[in-house]
Amino acid sequence: MANARENLLDWLRDAHAMEQQAETMLTSQVERLENYPDLRARIQQHLQETQQQRAQLEGCLQRLGSSPSTLKDMSAKVMAFGQGVAGMAMSDEVVKGAMSGYVFENMEIASYTVLIEAARVAQDAETQRVCEAILQEEVAMSDWLRDHLPELTRAFLVRSEAPGVEAKR
Amino acid sequence: MANARENLLDWLRDAHAMEQQAETMLTSQVERLENYPDLRARIQQHLQETQQQRAQLEGCLQRLGSSPSTLKDMSAKVMAFGQGVAGMAMSDEVVKGAMSGYVFENMEIASYTVLIEAARVAQDAETQRVCEAILQEEVAMSDWLRDHLPELTRAFLVRSEAPGVEAKR
Repeated sequence: MANARENLLDWLRDAHAMEQQAETMLTSQVERLENYPDLRARIQQHLQETQQQRAQLEGCLQRLGSSPSTLKDMSAKVMAFGQGVAGMAMSDEVVKGAMSGYVFENMEIASYTVLIEAARVAQDAETQRVCEAILQEEVAMSDWLRDHLPELTRAFLVRSEAPGVEAKR
Repeated sequence: MANARENLLDWLRDAHAMEQQAETMLTSQVERLENYPDLRARIQQHLQETQQQRAQLEGCLQRLGSSPSTLKDMSAKVMAFGQGVAGMAMSDEVVKGAMSGYVFENMEIASYTVLIEAARVAQDAETQRVCEAILQEEVAMSDWLRDHLPELTRAFLVRSEAPGVEAKR
């Protein structure tokens, strides 16, 4: 199935661009967070996972004959998303940042869910295996963020009320 | 807690803009889909839920003293997201559309998770109740899309291989 393999390659390139963007976003969040140590530590951990994921995707792309130099630029949509998050200096930055991180994780979950099936159809067992492993890390990060959103929201709102305390990051 | 209530109002306005954008996106998807009847039917159902959700949010906003005319314009980020999806005419439109729908649902899930806690802190039991009910509908739609992404991907790839068959929508 030539077309299935072409689609698989295309979607792998998208995923690679997405992980590059994730790295930029997570790095910016780690640098900016000051008062939310649990969130910062979890993002730091996921940043390392993200760097490994990008390397694994490069392995799949090279195995399929696509050199790193042919990786297409990240889509305008992913770009805009990351910029919106990275440039954030709003009063509720920590809440919006965690929300955006959660949404980004779910963009990744959708991508790997599609890639796993595409690899199956294209009978590329190694790409399927890599994407299944990455998907588990994305689901774990997504679950962590969603589980911690309520207490993060409460901590932000309580800090916002306290005189002389910075709440936003 | 004045600040908590102000944040709650702000986030309710964001959610209202988000549901307006969802309506635009879902309407466009229902109109464009031709060959994927299960997906189309589920989106049609969620479009109706979305319209009710918007009305419920308007009820909360009015109760809190914010008239519909003061609803701030949807954020540039949400706007860009919806446009990216609505204007989509790419060869893998149905797959990207379902992925985008899933991502949008998770933006909504993050928003209502934050709103529920903010309503709790602001001691607004009615807003909390409304947001908890809406959250259930968003989770159900998100789960449906994620569960059906693999078979949708496979159907798209199989249709792409068949001569004279349109695969993209």
